[in-house]
Amino acid sequence: MARIIALQTHDVRFPTSMTLDGSDAMNPDPDYSAAYLRLLTDAGDGLEGHGFVFTIGRGNDVQVAALRALEGHLVGRDVERTLADLGGMWHELVHDSQLRWLGPEKGIMHMAIGAAVTALWDLRAKREGKPLWRLLASLTPEEIVDLVDFRYLTDALTRDEALEILRAARPGRAEREKQLLARGFPAYTTTPGWLGYDDGKLARLCREAVADGFTQIKLKVGADLEADIRRLGIAREVCGPDIRIAVDANQRWDVGDAIRWMEALRPFGIAWIEEPTSPDDVLGHAAIARAVAPIPVATGEHAANRVLFKQFLQAGALSVLQLDATRVAGVNENIAILLLAAKFGVPVCPHAGGVGLCEAVQHLSMFDYVAVSGSTDNRMIEYVDHLHEHFVTPVEVHKGRYFPPGAPGAGTEMLAASIAEYTHV
Amino acid sequence: MARIIALQTHDVRFPTSMTLDGSDAMNPDPDYSAAYLRLLTDAGDGLEGHGFVFTIGRGNDVQVAALRALEGHLVGRDVERTLADLGGMWHELVHDSQLRWLGPEKGIMHMAIGAAVTALWDLRAKREGKPLWRLLASLTPEEIVDLVDFRYLTDALTRDEALEILRAARPGRAEREKQLLARGFPAYTTTPGWLGYDDGKLARLCREAVADGFTQIKLKVGADLEADIRRLGIAREVCGPDIRIAVDANQRWDVGDAIRWMEALRPFGIAWIEEPTSPDDVLGHAAIARAVAPIPVATGEHAANRVLFKQFLQAGALSVLQLDATRVAGVNENIAILLLAAKFGVPVCPHAGGVGLCEAVQHLSMFDYVAVSGSTDNRMIEYVDHLHEHFVTPVEVHKGRYFPPGAPGAGTEMLAASIAEYTHV
Repeated sequence: MARIIALQTHDVRFPTSMTLDGSDAMNPDPDYSAAYLRLLTDAGDGLEGHGFVFTIGRGNDVQVAALRALEGHLVGRDVERTLADLGGMWHELVHDSQLRWLGPEKGIMHMAIGAAVTALWDLRAKREGKPLWRLLASLTPEEIVDLVDFRYLTDALTRDEALEILRAARPGRAEREKQLLARGFPAYTTTPGWLGYDDGKLARLCREAVADGFTQIKLKVGADLEADIRRLGIAREVCGPDIRIAVDANQRWDVGDAIRWMEALRPFGIAWIEEPTSPDDVLGHAAIARAVAPIPVATGEHAANRVLFKQFLQAGALSVLQLDATRVAGVNENIAILLLAAKFGVPVCPHAGGVGLCEAVQHLSMFDYVAVSGSTDNRMIEYVDHLHEHFVTPVEVHKGRYFPPGAPGAGTEMLAASIAEYTHV
Repeated sequence: MARIIALQTHDVRFPTSMTLDGSDAMNPDPDYSAAYLRLLTDAGDGLEGHGFVFTIGRGNDVQVAALRALEGHLVGRDVERTLADLGGMWHELVHDSQLRWLGPEKGIMHMAIGAAVTALWDLRAKREGKPLWRLLASLTPEEIVDLVDFRYLTDALTRDEALEILRAARPGRAEREKQLLARGFPAYTTTPGWLGYDDGKLARLCREAVADGFTQIKLKVGADLEADIRRLGIAREVCGPDIRIAVDANQRWDVGDAIRWMEALRPFGIAWIEEPTSPDDVLGHAAIARAVAPIPVATGEHAANRVLFKQFLQAGALSVLQLDATRVAGVNENIAILLLAAKFGVPVCPHAGGVGLCEAVQHLSMFDYVAVSGSTDNRMIEYVDHLHEHFVTPVEVHKGRYFPPGAPGAGTEMLAASIAEYTHV
């Protein structure tokens, strides 16, 4: 019988603030970082489970301390039994009554649980020799709903309704998997639009994005209206009328600001307005959505848990759901939110502007396509073109599409050399 | 010129789980704990600023790590200038863009900022020789609104509206301060109702509460309907018809459960139903409030920040606002929420079921009465009768009322001997 014998952590930080990659109206100088977790076993097969929380620098050490607080729940456990009941494991971690006080189900502790859960999924996928998306898409509807905690969701989505959604999608799974392997999954790129780039770099990167086959780009906005108008003008001119241009305010505005600002940007043809205000403000987003229609409101990268997403959907406060895979509690809560989105007919376009997020979230979107929503309509995975070289299985993006990873695992494993080189001291 | 020269932290845990003090439907065995912070200066006056985050045990070490992450913001600062602009200090801490990613404005990092902010207020109150409630109540309306960050609030409360509320309350300040000193502030007690107590202990403690002059008690419910009905029957019989009995489900239910359960408990005459479901679920609470009316819905001890409270008020989702002083970001965010409550005409009855919370929150309720809401109608401070002996200025509660502390400071200073004895190793 194999056991989990160690939980190792690493405080990994990349000095991205030096180039202003990732800069926006609220995050002027992020250092893309990972609070990184490895689960070791004595199975003798050389396989480890890897997971991480994406952060942007300071405080990554606190996030690592939160990972360490989970050691007692994980080390010593029977590997087979744990991996066979990841719904039960999720429940044990999220409902530890003392740790729960520190959220509940939000912030540093919840994200730490997410990294641990995802590391367990990584280990399971490696042991089964499958990429995570394919492992998840091979589960029965009953096995999938057993992974989900329906507490606090039943006024919007019951277990039976989730089963119906999954059963309805089942007959088409094989055909969609074939499509996915042949054609990939749509992507959009945020690379041109960071706020710290000058106009020349913006224009050049827009041109490259179109040449690379992307059909949507995204620009950061929200700090200076005049500058936003100038930058959108450049982007629209370079890209032409057929490329979709989304904008992202990164929570910069109050409700009234958002409405006024979007009136001014409306003439540029806006694909969506992302994070117009506080990520906790369901009612504020709903008010903005009504006022700026038909421009879609997108949000979710800072939404703490499934209860927030439930309300955003109930209130019609978003029409593009931007789940962040490492902010909610791992693969299981991602699945809960994919099911909620399917119930409400809202597309999920996951947040991936970070280190390792592209590698991780593609598995969830591909599972969504094959086994849950059954569609790629209006669905895109964000793409940013940096730091992929630090991962064991970097994404394969060609002509604006993600091609499915074939290597076993959840995509979350960073190269040992990169961990060593970028460990924060 | 004096500077802050050190930030010291302590992981303090009391073994309350041994007696089931504090036990409820979601927290069966809490160990009341404090992630504790001391700010030292070189002023030579012997004064220190103390603050803490209340937790219930495991994870208190992670909370301490979050306190430590604030060292760079605090150590080395000019004491006078910092204390003269605590609005600016709050803004610097909450809007540190890298730390903000770990919430934003919620969970471990936000609570750590709250402890630091409150420690600064404690230091300022000691230096001015005033208890915090009196210090706050001596500020001008303009000085008070300068402490508040109105970002994300302006669709419900603007700076000008807040000023109006404070100006309207100003003429009555002196008279209300006199009233407060003479008659104290109303309290209610949670002491009889912890879920882990047997029926005999429940009856005895109910009898004692009435004899002690309390006019409201609170019972934990939500784990077992039959047991709740039995325990409410005992409490109502012992207390008689005139004592208000509130119930507290500690987030145990989904929306439908809450509505059904409260139908069954309605005949006992319920003063309020507290935390019926997820503390993030504004829309769920609103649905429950509509269904269980006229029973008031109370919540807030786990509401992460002012944006959540804004929505609870906008949606009519609560009619008793139970702010937790150490969950939001310190004195400043408490003031923001008191102002929101005043705007909506909703009474604030702060959460105090923890260690040190009674000592801390009384200052905020008394400030609210003197300078903001101007009323004690339907306002009560929770009281629990344990662990007060560990504080330098323990609460003075007589005949069911809190009497105003006179000692300088925020009430947050724990005895050095208690810190030493209960430091977790």
